[in-house]
Amino acid sequence: MAEVLAATAATDWRPLDSTHTLYLDLGVGRVVILLAPEFAPHHVENIRRLVAQRYFDGLAVVRSQENYVVQWADPAGEGEPRRSLGDAATALAAEFDRPRGSLSITPLPDGDVYAPEVGFSRELPVAHDPSSGRAWLAHCYGMVGVGRDISPDSGSGAEMYVVIGHSPRHLDRNVTLVGRVVEGMEHLSTLPRGHAGLGFYEDPAMYVPVRSIRLGSDLPEEERAGLELLRTDTAAFEALIEARRNRREEWFADPTGRIELCNVPLPVRAREIG
Amino acid sequence: MAEVLAATAATDWRPLDSTHTLYLDLGVGRVVILLAPEFAPHHVENIRRLVAQRYFDGLAVVRSQENYVVQWADPAGEGEPRRSLGDAATALAAEFDRPRGSLSITPLPDGDVYAPEVGFSRELPVAHDPSSGRAWLAHCYGMVGVGRDISPDSGSGAEMYVVIGHSPRHLDRNVTLVGRVVEGMEHLSTLPRGHAGLGFYEDPAMYVPVRSIRLGSDLPEEERAGLELLRTDTAAFEALIEARRNRREEWFADPTGRIELCNVPLPVRAREIG
Repeated sequence: MAEVLAATAATDWRPLDSTHTLYLDLGVGRVVILLAPEFAPHHVENIRRLVAQRYFDGLAVVRSQENYVVQWADPAGEGEPRRSLGDAATALAAEFDRPRGSLSITPLPDGDVYAPEVGFSRELPVAHDPSSGRAWLAHCYGMVGVGRDISPDSGSGAEMYVVIGHSPRHLDRNVTLVGRVVEGMEHLSTLPRGHAGLGFYEDPAMYVPVRSIRLGSDLPEEERAGLELLRTDTAAFEALIEARRNRREEWFADPTGRIELCNVPLPVRAREIG
Repeated sequence: MAEVLAATAATDWRPLDSTHTLYLDLGVGRVVILLAPEFAPHHVENIRRLVAQRYFDGLAVVRSQENYVVQWADPAGEGEPRRSLGDAATALAAEFDRPRGSLSITPLPDGDVYAPEVGFSRELPVAHDPSSGRAWLAHCYGMVGVGRDISPDSGSGAEMYVVIGHSPRHLDRNVTLVGRVVEGMEHLSTLPRGHAGLGFYEDPAMYVPVRSIRLGSDLPEEERAGLELLRTDTAAFEALIEARRNRREEWFADPTGRIELCNVPLPVRAREIG
């Protein structure tokens, strides 16, 4: 993998699009999230509205379920007033999948338990079904989704979750995914677990304050993470897939010869200053 | 799943075998590990020897790699004396796989990216290859393995790791797995991450002390966890697989209809006192 990365050209890397990057400040550290407007345009737009009115500032991580997800939400208790979503929608139609259409997908060759075909599109893990022509984001580790109630059309983006365990792919097409964490996962994955049902914290004293969520484009340039992602539509990324499918490192007794979607790493680096 | 568990009989549950259960005391909490002598008899026996001479007491978690593994080992620094393994072997032949032989395996029906067939044997996730007749344990979340150097035959059990991220199945048949965590995963998965190479802690001040590792059979009855596992060779477990393959809960818009090996939960409960 180091060899593959050393051989990349500047054009193999895509700078984070600051208008579609969230910065979640947890005090203990900052989590950087790449949004996916190609897959969930209405949810992403609603989240941008919520960010614009600083809806998230002062919310809290209220759930940390072992081998599953963490989730932030309005920490108001039963019967307490909840904060207004302002001009953002309180419920949106599900965006569980979309027509594949012209979506460029770098395919993986080894199959998948949950979907007919899987691969990567604009640095995101995706699945698609050639027979229906539909494509969707896959629940890999670090993916970010939108909590909802029983109705598929009840999510808004006001509550978001992040996968912190073995990828729960049974959630694919059951929840709207809106992006992936590209830096700072450990600030979420190491949070103490909650022990009420579904991993909610029993005691509000355990809530982890969300100081703020900002769009990259709202921050001065010097406060942005300055990250670049290895483009998944490049020969370099295909070489990386091969290097991970067939492990040539001396340590490996069995090079494996296969790879599963959620085991493909996405290289992220600090932007090179030209 | 609740319905399936409510319908189980006492004989559907297997009490932990105390002679093959490890209790890892981290001070902040206790981790209970079921050993797998059917798959790694020599490593398990060596670990039992190390436990008998209290080799592990005073060691430390020295590595916590985001989305990968935590690992405990002798915390001695470069050039410092390392503790003796006493009458335990310092290196063992790899136990990466074994003949399937008479091993009873409850199969999963939806395939696997890494192996021709997968399922469960005595509460452990396993893979096997009918063409070679070999079977092996699979690197699911919570599995416990034995660190080794470049040589496949260099592991001893003196250093063990636990999977805390998306299941790294490319390690299958590359490292000897010796068991799985059945209680207390959160005490490992929430440890602060290390930031030296491979997630080792840069600063020994971050090492997390291992107070002790004991066999269940070394503890007085009242200090044992008193756990039972749902036997994976039962109709009850097959019903659980079906309930997880086809999610009938109202919340699910798409019942999925498939399940992947490492997404099958293993029910664990406090032993019923007769």
